[in-house]
Formats: sequence, structure tokens, C-alpha cells
Amino acid sequence: MREYNVAILGATGAVGNRMIAQLAQSSIPVKTIKLLASKRSAGQTLAFRDQSVVIEEATPSSFDGIDLVFASAGGSVSKQLLPEAVKRGAVCVDNSSAFRMDPTVPLVVPEVNPNDLANHQGIIANPNCSTIQMVVALNPIYHQYGLKRVIVSTYQAAGGAGQSALDELNIQSQAILDGQTPEAHILPVKSAAKHYPLAFNLIPQIDVFDEQDYTYEEWKMTHETKKILLGDPETKALAVSATCVRVPVPIGHGESVYFETKDTNVTPAELKALLASAPGVVLQDDPAQQIYPMPINAVGKQETYVGRLRADLDQPGGFHTWIVADNLLKGAAWNAIQIGECLVEQDLVHATIN
Amino acid sequence: MREYNVAILGATGAVGNRMIAQLAQSSIPVKTIKLLASKRSAGQTLAFRDQSVVIEEATPSSFDGIDLVFASAGGSVSKQLLPEAVKRGAVCVDNSSAFRMDPTVPLVVPEVNPNDLANHQGIIANPNCSTIQMVVALNPIYHQYGLKRVIVSTYQAAGGAGQSALDELNIQSQAILDGQTPEAHILPVKSAAKHYPLAFNLIPQIDVFDEQDYTYEEWKMTHETKKILLGDPETKALAVSATCVRVPVPIGHGESVYFETKDTNVTPAELKALLASAPGVVLQDDPAQQIYPMPINAVGKQETYVGRLRADLDQPGGFHTWIVADNLLKGAAWNAIQIGECLVEQDLVHATIN
Repeated sequence: MREYNVAILGATGAVGNRMIAQLAQSSIPVKTIKLLASKRSAGQTLAFRDQSVVIEEATPSSFDGIDLVFASAGGSVSKQLLPEAVKRGAVCVDNSSAFRMDPTVPLVVPEVNPNDLANHQGIIANPNCSTIQMVVALNPIYHQYGLKRVIVSTYQAAGGAGQSALDELNIQSQAILDGQTPEAHILPVKSAAKHYPLAFNLIPQIDVFDEQDYTYEEWKMTHETKKILLGDPETKALAVSATCVRVPVPIGHGESVYFETKDTNVTPAELKALLASAPGVVLQDDPAQQIYPMPINAVGKQETYVGRLRADLDQPGGFHTWIVADNLLKGAAWNAIQIGECLVEQDLVHATIN
Repeated sequence: MREYNVAILGATGAVGNRMIAQLAQSSIPVKTIKLLASKRSAGQTLAFRDQSVVIEEATPSSFDGIDLVFASAGGSVSKQLLPEAVKRGAVCVDNSSAFRMDPTVPLVVPEVNPNDLANHQGIIANPNCSTIQMVVALNPIYHQYGLKRVIVSTYQAAGGAGQSALDELNIQSQAILDGQTPEAHILPVKSAAKHYPLAFNLIPQIDVFDEQDYTYEEWKMTHETKKILLGDPETKALAVSATCVRVPVPIGHGESVYFETKDTNVTPAELKALLASAPGVVLQDDPAQQIYPMPINAVGKQETYVGRLRADLDQPGGFHTWIVADNLLKGAAWNAIQIGECLVEQDLVHATIN
């Protein structure tokens, strides 16, 4: 069996940390592991299985001899270093948004479009966290009954903005409980002019504002969903619109999703039966027993939890549902490692000829 | 000028407390004030303006000589005591859901349907908190451009479930910050079989489940919106569907609202201009300056804050917006006192002949 020299870029972040743990549990045969980060973290150690691994500063030559890279170091680092890794023969799974809309880069959720991996040219993009959990739930419905439109309102956890946002939520929460005024330095966007406390608050801005007064996070949900489900980020064959809101939850995104199926005769019971056996989905939908998805039950899990599924009472083929997943696992680290497993299974970890 | 003998029923609750404060600031000429609660609270004192008022146990005879009652003591207390108050010549503004769907009871948001008060028969119902802030924002749009459908996802604060839910959110938050497992006794529904912690979590259940797997909170948003805007809770002339989620925020409901106007030529700029001058609305919509509604800025305010208004890019006449208000003030205490002000202005505080 082939074994792989694996590197994790951005190993010290909230997602990078979880990539190490998810890789350790995965079916990927790891020959050697290299943990890469910025100069600041170099020299520190992190555990991979029973090994203590010294973190190295990421430079182009770090990728010499590496077969497989999992990157979660932000868009600018990915843009700079991943082409260097590819040049050296590595295949890269990138968690940033840098390459997602590149038509030569597959954007993959393994339950949905694993076959897109076959066309990779060295870089595979991991979708946005809020997109992943939604398409895991919608994909079986799309294939069985068709989809006309999706309207989603997100309830996104602090962890999606990294460890510093998680830390700040705790510090702000304690300050408020102590009767103090909380400080804010991270959210909604670290580089933005204004910062607002998330603790005990709601911030209807995730990422910067784009054209037409949508945030880039909302834009990502629209275009990534179309690319993953239909293969074309600009297609008008499916309408997708999003409102993205940050909520004071550490980990676990919630999504209130309205969707319309092309088949207007489908019933909630049929949709629930379909979802109950859908890959990567756990149906938690028993109102009489107060069973529905909640972040506290999704933390640390690889699955996407779906519930509260019910018919819109005015629109034939219209339905509402509520979707929760661990945004750092299925929304990031686990989906990336899962892509790695697919690459290994499909024997697609090899240098590409551009 | 006529002065009124006023009673507040449920004076010790989160809403009752705020009714006292809002009444104190209102234009209602108060001759005498009576604070009523359960036997448990009788004998305690609360301040009204510079008076210290002894709380009395609410009984039918408490309403002898009372002109105007503001009630927030729950549905069963209202059902039992408000007919007794009416019998004694009082006019009652009730914050519970007990009478809202009664066709003889006006369901009033003063910015929207103050003329419905003229037909009262002693009881006026204060709508559900999440309904009020939505109709304040949608009413001018409905009148100017027509409305076809509304899809709302709510982000509802703990305070909507009363002081005990507010206290529990604080206790649970501190427990989690201290590394302990939080206890849950109040939410989602005190009388339900299961309780879940709200701190750092999301609970997609508000009130009990109704038919067709909607919660009663969701049902209320649908039918109350129709009764307030169109005068008929069952009308099919407007489609309204809701997903209601409790979030770990003490006070201030958020709502992500999608709506479709009948006039499909209207622009976001026209809607924003309309909302900027709409009664009770504060437009906070400047993405370039990161200005949008947030609970921390709405707490303690009487207004409804509207922002993030933008066109749906797939649906002509489709728009998304984000609405925040203090659910204990505009969503409850202030709306009730404001109804009282309208009753006084319209000289409608008088015994009814049934």
C-alpha cells in the first residue's frame, strides 16, 4: 500500500489543529507528517498520534518531497505557497477561498461531488463552512426531486472566524457577566474599520461587503452551492440567496433553509426518509420528542444534522428545514481530510502535468 | 383633562416591570396606579415615578374602579381575570396570546392599525413580540408596494421567555465559562418534558409544537401578521411562513426577513427611503460604514431597527432585510403602553356595553 508524506499548513489554527486530529483518525496512510505555520510558531511542538512534531516555518522548500498538503492558513498564504507545493509534485486541499472560483479547481464535498476530483490540477478547494453543511442536506433532494430555489439564513458560530474569535467570545462573555464593557478587536472582520462584541449579541456581517450590499460570505453561499451542486457557479438554473449572521455560539453553525423542489408532489415524510439514509446526514426530526439539531449536540461530530423539516403551507413544493454541523469539522477540517481520503481511494495523489 | 385609574397585572415580571417604567414616561394621565401580581409577590413594593407602591394580590375585586389595565401575567391569568375587569368597566390591554385570535378583540400595533381600536369590547390584544417588529417594518411596504409573501427566520432573545429565562442564561453562561455542565429548567418551554441549555447554543423551538410540525410561535407569526396587516388571520392574500429559533442573547430579537412586493419595479433605494420616514422605524443601513441593526444597540429603545435591505438577485420584487427591536419594549411593554396612549387619544377608555 502506498504511504504518503503529508503536510499541514496552518497547523496551529483552530482548523489546522482539527486537521491534525482528523488526519490521525483517517484512513489516509501517513508515512511522514510535517506541520507548517508562520515563523512565530516555528519550534513549538504538536502531537500527531503518538509523535511529537516540531512545527516548521512554511517556505516553498518545505514542500520538497511532500505528496499531500492540507492548508488552512488563509487566502494570501495559500495563494503564495500552494503553487510552490504543486510545482514540487504535491496535491493540495485548501480551506481558504483563494481558489474556489477558479474553473480549473474542483470545489468538493465528498458526499456530493467526489467525481470532480478526477480533474484536479494539483489544488482542490474545500468549500465555505456554511455552504458544506447545506449542500450535504440538499444534494439528495436535488437529485431525487429537483431544486428550484433556496433561501438560507445562517446562525454562524464564532469559531468560523478562528481561534482568536473563540477566545474573544469567552473573554467578552465573562466581562459582561462581571458587569464590565466588553472590548472587541476581531469580529466581524479583523481588518475592518469597526469591531463589535459578539457576546450576547448578533452581528449581521460575516466577511466584507461585496457589490449589491451582500457580504462576501453570502456571495460564497450562492456561488459555491451552484458550483458544487450544478458544476457552474453562475448558473441561473437554481436560485440561491443567503443572509449570514454571526451568533454568540463557539462552535456549530445553524441554518434555517427554505427550499422549493421541482417535483411539487413530494411530501415531508418522503424527504425525511430520503435524508435518513443520505450519506453524511443524521436526521434529528421528532418534534413530539423535542428532537431537533442543536450546536451543543453537533460539536465534535463529522455528520450534518437535519431536522424541523416541514411543508410551507402556501407554496406547493416549498419546505423549511434546520441544519446544524460542527463548522470546524464538517465545515472545514473533516471535509478537507475526507477529500484527502477520496484522493487516496481514487489514486489521485500524484504530480500533475500542467 | 381626564385622568385614569390604571392597574398593571403581572407587575413583577420582565414585561410587567417594563410596563411600569414605560407608563411612567408615557402621555397617559395617571390618577392612581395599582400593581397586581400573584399572592407570592403581594406586600412587596415597586416604584412608579416617585411613589412606592405596595403590590397587591390580583383578584376580581382588584379591578373595582379601574379604568385601564395592562396585563402581562400569562394566558390563563388573563383568561380568568380580564373578563372580570371588563365587567367592572375597565379597558384591558393584554400581552398574552389568550385573546389574540378572538375576532371581537383588536390585535394592535399602533404604527400599523390604530383604527382597529375603535371596535374594542373591553379587551385589546398586544401581539407576539416577534410579530410586532416585523409588521412595523413591513406595513409601509405593504401599503406602498403591496406584499405577496414573507419568509422569516427569527433570532429570539432569552428575555422573551421571561425573567427566569434571562437569569438562567446568565447562570448557564457562567457555568460553561467555569468549565461546568450547565443545568436547564426553563427553555424551550417550561412545562415541556425536556429542557436544553441556551447558553452558547441555539434552540429551534419556541413554544410548543402545533399541527404540521410548526411551533406555536411560528403559527403566531403567520396568523397575527395576517390579522394585523390585512384584518384576517386566515387570509390567503399574503403568504407568511416562519422559523423561530432561540439564541443566547438576553434582550433584542433579530429577524432575517425575505419578502416579495406586488410591484416588481420597486428598488432597494425606494424601500430604504420609505422606511427612513416610516413611523417607529429607524433605518440603520450603511454597509460601507458597517451600520446595521444589532441587539446591543436596540436594548432599551422603543424603535424598530431595519437594515441590510437588498434585492434578491433571482426574484424580481424579492428583497432581504434584517430587523432588530427590544422584544421587551416594542415587542411587549412599550407596544402595550403605546396602545394605552392611543386609547386615551381616541377617548376609547370607557366601559363597553356587551
